[in-house]
Amino acid sequence: MNFYDSLKYDSQGLIPAVIQDAKTKEVLMVAYMNKEALKTTVETGKTHFWSRSRQKFWLKGESSGHTQSVKKMFLDCDLDTVVILVEQIGGACHEGYMSCFFRELDQKTLELKVTGKKVFDEKDVYKK
Amino acid sequence: MNFYDSLKYDSQGLIPAVIQDAKTKEVLMVAYMNKEALKTTVETGKTHFWSRSRQKFWLKGESSGHTQSVKKMFLDCDLDTVVILVEQIGGACHEGYMSCFFRELDQKTLELKVTGKKVFDEKDVYKK
Repeated sequence: MNFYDSLKYDSQGLIPAVIQDAKTKEVLMVAYMNKEALKTTVETGKTHFWSRSRQKFWLKGESSGHTQSVKKMFLDCDLDTVVILVEQIGGACHEGYMSCFFRELDQKTLELKVTGKKVFDEKDVYKK
Repeated sequence: MNFYDSLKYDSQGLIPAVIQDAKTKEVLMVAYMNKEALKTTVETGKTHFWSRSRQKFWLKGESSGHTQSVKKMFLDCDLDTVVILVEQIGGACHEGYMSCFFRELDQKTLELKVTGKKVFDEKDVYKK
């Protein structure tokens, strides 16, 4: 069985991909890949995903220019999740932050506090 | 709206949780939380999950003793994924490795190679 067929996709044919900064190890985002997105990611060295909300195959950075170059890929014991270490151009989050996980939860008050690094102005990058 | 109700759970009432080692930043595992698991995780400081395969609420480490103490929690821009930094007792993977992501994909040959650290003998830990 080839590698792409050996993975355990969910009922929608997807596996979650955890994208981590290769240098800082910060988790930048979590997105979903179908077989085609995974194959294109491996073959081009740039991350590609399947957008569940837009039901569309996309190259990360296609509108922002903020692409991710694949450095390393790891599979888990169950073959149903992938971790990808990348070099991120610009920032990963469409709200202008380096990471989508830019808010920390205060476990006592349950308030969210912005702790992440803003790296670009999303109004400039995503203007139509 | 309270914090737990503000998150965007999927059609099964779950959100993925990326568990990261607080010190090394290695991604240890990805598992799923329903509202109860998330609340119990915050309130006890130990990670709890919803097992999709066993359809069961579980304390990570309940049979192995390999619990995870919560250090920090981060929410993403879409409020549908959580990253949790933990102190891991023993190892996270039921196959005896520190991380479930113990195999690296060779992007040229598509072969998986074990690169992770074995930290316990799973036959001893999970013996019945």
